[in-house]
Amino acid sequence: MTSPTVPAPGTATPGLRGVVVTTTELGDVRGEEGFFHYRQYSAVDLARHRSVEDVWFLLHRGWLPSPQESSGFAAEIAAARSLPPVLEEALPVIAASGGSYLAGLRTALSLLDGFRPVYDISPADRSADALRVCALTPTVLAALHRLRSGASGVGPRGDLGATANWLWMLTGSEASTEQVRALERYLVATVDHGFNASTFTARVIASTGADVAAAVVGALGAFSGPLHGGAPDRALAALEQIGAPDRAAAWVREQLADGGRVMGFGHAVYRTRDPRSELLRETALELGGPLVDLAVEVEERVVETLAELKPGRRLYANVEYYAGVVMSLCGLDPALFTPTFATSRVIGWCANVLEQATDPRIIRPAAAYTGPEAPAPLP
Amino acid sequence: MTSPTVPAPGTATPGLRGVVVTTTELGDVRGEEGFFHYRQYSAVDLARHRSVEDVWFLLHRGWLPSPQESSGFAAEIAAARSLPPVLEEALPVIAASGGSYLAGLRTALSLLDGFRPVYDISPADRSADALRVCALTPTVLAALHRLRSGASGVGPRGDLGATANWLWMLTGSEASTEQVRALERYLVATVDHGFNASTFTARVIASTGADVAAAVVGALGAFSGPLHGGAPDRALAALEQIGAPDRAAAWVREQLADGGRVMGFGHAVYRTRDPRSELLRETALELGGPLVDLAVEVEERVVETLAELKPGRRLYANVEYYAGVVMSLCGLDPALFTPTFATSRVIGWCANVLEQATDPRIIRPAAAYTGPEAPAPLP
Repeated sequence: MTSPTVPAPGTATPGLRGVVVTTTELGDVRGEEGFFHYRQYSAVDLARHRSVEDVWFLLHRGWLPSPQESSGFAAEIAAARSLPPVLEEALPVIAASGGSYLAGLRTALSLLDGFRPVYDISPADRSADALRVCALTPTVLAALHRLRSGASGVGPRGDLGATANWLWMLTGSEASTEQVRALERYLVATVDHGFNASTFTARVIASTGADVAAAVVGALGAFSGPLHGGAPDRALAALEQIGAPDRAAAWVREQLADGGRVMGFGHAVYRTRDPRSELLRETALELGGPLVDLAVEVEERVVETLAELKPGRRLYANVEYYAGVVMSLCGLDPALFTPTFATSRVIGWCANVLEQATDPRIIRPAAAYTGPEAPAPLP
Repeated sequence: MTSPTVPAPGTATPGLRGVVVTTTELGDVRGEEGFFHYRQYSAVDLARHRSVEDVWFLLHRGWLPSPQESSGFAAEIAAARSLPPVLEEALPVIAASGGSYLAGLRTALSLLDGFRPVYDISPADRSADALRVCALTPTVLAALHRLRSGASGVGPRGDLGATANWLWMLTGSEASTEQVRALERYLVATVDHGFNASTFTARVIASTGADVAAAVVGALGAFSGPLHGGAPDRALAALEQIGAPDRAAAWVREQLADGGRVMGFGHAVYRTRDPRSELLRETALELGGPLVDLAVEVEERVVETLAELKPGRRLYANVEYYAGVVMSLCGLDPALFTPTFATSRVIGWCANVLEQATDPRIIRPAAAYTGPEAPAPLP
């Protein structure tokens, strides 16, 4: 956000809304303009023209890689993809527990050893720790999916890029170029997005000097909260529930009458169309098919109805709306939508940890006591 | 802190130091007065006169329990102490990994299923989830210690209070009344202490609506950071390194000359003697012995030397200094000091989660972008 508000002196700031915690060079979300960028490059442009790995390199190392740097980085990532023995042993136990895939990822990362406190190591070593977390995340999630669902997926392949490798591990077959390119756009566009609660959690934990895995483990906890958002499977479920464009208006009225939210619409920061939604609609249209036609028509009706029922609120389709459509057309089961999101967002969390580690100040705010006067005698 | 400073409009507040994030009725730390309380009762008075369970009840349920409420609560805790089958299966794998006991606790809590998003459940159900986390924490830590060290400890006993049960599980024998009473003081005095980074992490995660285990898992990550503090084994190691009172002054000079910190002295908030340190010194003196005599004499010399070398800084013994001495006299190995601390602090983290859950606002601050102007064309 470019124009944060700051609280009047002496007042508490519930939720820290608009309070500037720190500076960042990783990027910015301009909610009024419908624009966001990573290190000064439009995230949407990056999504159209660059790979996940290039953007990962940009955020973690500071610049867009040369072709030579790209291939070196690809080799580093490929080498870090394989499951270590401790996870080979633990993942069946984790998969047999009742938790979600992301809770399983959290447990697996928590179990991994060998990460070092971020203040005690060189930037290169921190970067290597971050790379290890980001490279292992898809492997762990795919293994959990395999163990849990009996799916025919397989282990990682070093010769595939991040996106193609993810689809390969989940399905055991190579995805089409169109599918890889479509999913890559989604992944690049969701790598990072300002100071949401999970990113902030990662930074608070990193500010203590804890290691990068501890920070990501905490971020995954924040991400699991229902208020956090970022669950494209809910938006697709809503679309399927609507089923036909002429039912959209009535469906929106029902949701609002029940006091519910309209999944896939509205955003905490954007007051315009969500630029990620625009990109993903275009991407969905390129893939084409009846689901896309339905989504486009329903979007139009829902936005119209929301403008009528919630005038002035400027509610548009958010990133979740077309994300579910695109992932579905890439052959992913809805249970894999949120894990897919996690494979990109972990790169952003880690970029934030690496940046936080350059500031040796712990994040330690205050609370105002508002209970009865103290001390009181013990009863 | 009672008089938080608030940033001037438009400026960033590095580390959020003194920024009031929220209100709390759980207690307050008055750094200038050397006083802190839990729900208006002096924490030091509570430590002298009440059990861990009474203070746990106070923080989680809102008042000091009647004798009848105390025994009902003890039964609830006892019923929640046993390891569930998933942890019986997973703990050997966790113990065999290289992580610390607290990292193992984090993994175990992450693996546990059945916790519900805090906004979706009643206060009573949230309280039950919090009780489960707090009751299981000592059992998990003791089991990890047993598996890792081959110690002769045993499983939990329902007929013992929290403190006696902790010592029982670690050693397999009943501690003396004096030891239980001494350790209980330490545990009560360290249950909660303002908005440190781990407590704040727990609240940020809970503000998304995530479950209590997710919040504690994140807090454990923040707690693992070297800047967080709270490691009484380092203070005892320093005391043993000094070895004799007449070596204290030279030792302090060496530490400061090397740019190091003097472990066990100084605190982020207190500008007076740390009230916890006062309580624990008295407790140590009651237990008595050569280690206590050494600690008292060394404390005096270190404070004198620090006053000379760092005039105006008001550096005194902090909670860690006598904590290590007291725990050592209670028969605990230094490797168990931090886990012991975790068995009490988890109660405070959960109290903060329960309070945060009554405020349905996500904690989501902002960052100020300070990189080069955007957008730039892609190279």
